[in-house]
Amino acid sequence: MELFIIDKIAFLGPEGTFTHEAASKITNNLISYCSIPAVMESIQSNKHLKGIVPIENSIEGPVGITLDSLIHKFDLKINGEIILPINHHLLGKSADNLLTITDVYSHPQALAQCQSFINDNKFRTHHALSTASAAKNILTMDNSGAIGTSKAAELYDLEIIKSNIQDADNNQTRFIILAKNDHEITGFDKTSIAFSIFEDYPGQLYNILGIFAKNNINLTKIESRPSKEGLGKYVFFIDFLGHRNNKNIKKILYEINNKTPFTKVLGSYPINKY
Amino acid sequence: MELFIIDKIAFLGPEGTFTHEAASKITNNLISYCSIPAVMESIQSNKHLKGIVPIENSIEGPVGITLDSLIHKFDLKINGEIILPINHHLLGKSADNLLTITDVYSHPQALAQCQSFINDNKFRTHHALSTASAAKNILTMDNSGAIGTSKAAELYDLEIIKSNIQDADNNQTRFIILAKNDHEITGFDKTSIAFSIFEDYPGQLYNILGIFAKNNINLTKIESRPSKEGLGKYVFFIDFLGHRNNKNIKKILYEINNKTPFTKVLGSYPINKY
Repeated sequence: MELFIIDKIAFLGPEGTFTHEAASKITNNLISYCSIPAVMESIQSNKHLKGIVPIENSIEGPVGITLDSLIHKFDLKINGEIILPINHHLLGKSADNLLTITDVYSHPQALAQCQSFINDNKFRTHHALSTASAAKNILTMDNSGAIGTSKAAELYDLEIIKSNIQDADNNQTRFIILAKNDHEITGFDKTSIAFSIFEDYPGQLYNILGIFAKNNINLTKIESRPSKEGLGKYVFFIDFLGHRNNKNIKKILYEINNKTPFTKVLGSYPINKY
Repeated sequence: MELFIIDKIAFLGPEGTFTHEAASKITNNLISYCSIPAVMESIQSNKHLKGIVPIENSIEGPVGITLDSLIHKFDLKINGEIILPINHHLLGKSADNLLTITDVYSHPQALAQCQSFINDNKFRTHHALSTASAAKNILTMDNSGAIGTSKAAELYDLEIIKSNIQDADNNQTRFIILAKNDHEITGFDKTSIAFSIFEDYPGQLYNILGIFAKNNINLTKIESRPSKEGLGKYVFFIDFLGHRNNKNIKKILYEINNKTPFTKVLGSYPINKY
């Protein structure tokens, strides 16, 4: 019985969100948690072996709480990644259509990603905790629609009034699979690290990037996050091609570790396998 | 009459938020707008000469819609900056106290910044459009508190049940003053630029940072934002000391412009004058 629970993969719920859609690509043996730290805590405390949370969106940028929690609160590794195209739909009750709807509910990020459609239709917008809870909200409301997934439409028996209403065509979200350990070498790997720099700012970051440039290592991501120590102080998140157990990457990580006050290898894992 | 309206400074409302508090440092002749793009539009269309919006918080990071709107939608300049310490308070009706409150309303960012306090008191959290609208919301609700400013407590006749409930001591928000033109040289200036890089990634950013390092120019900020062209493609935002009309800065900007597919000078302005 306990093994069965451990085997479940934790994900940022509720059901019917994009994280649910991403997690479904791996297994249907899933269990939802109400927040990103709660997913991480469930792995840290050995309730589950793996968990899935969003880390960045191609339009909105990084998911701050995922990056911050990985650095400041939990000692987990990135074991894999899932990249999902994000298609938003306007959901409504069967009696409604584009003309009867005046108010739209969704997660702030989904509302932000459908701004043109919302403006064109002069909808009033309302924040909801998730795209799925927005879909649930409108069940008891008049003249209201929700922006959400087709999975949420199924769950709450809603109609898709208009599909693919997002502003940008290349709207993708990257999810990470978290575990206590990262992934073994597959030959087609990526490594994520975070580091801070000493006060002497411009030269520092320049020198770190130089280590990658000189070794001809391709970066696939660079993000800066506030270190929480005041404006202008950052933690940098870099993803690059290669596995931390590759000989050349080992050398690079050693060098970065020596040049920074803080370096954390978040994990090596296969590139977008799912 | 018209001059009077032009002279008003637009700010991201509603009244009682931190942006209102920041804007009040300059003038009381203020007018609130309901969104960051609406503030920018009011300047672009000559309704007002200046507007104030948040650009970054030391805990939460950049305000994505401010950065994205400056790059993709408006041709405005940064004319000044205001840095404000952020102190959150738990507001409630006079009959309530820490023990009677079960539910707390606020802007998602304010909730995120008071996580420890919320967890310690086992509050259920609810998103609101702003800290001020959260304060207004709870007027008609039982056992509910709002996280907001002392200005909001005044406006809605609420009590401060617990003050300074934020997790971090060094919680500051940086606001920018936008106008059609940036600021003349004062001798104590900062310049903000944004640029993208060519596909060959690691060498590119390294080379740009090298221009600053070699000229001994201090960066005060570096942020990456998705360029909206797909995962892994970024626009970089850099702030550095100096005015774009300084001779050495002119040379640097010329060099960066030549080395990137896209560079935009967002403006030069006095460092934290207010």
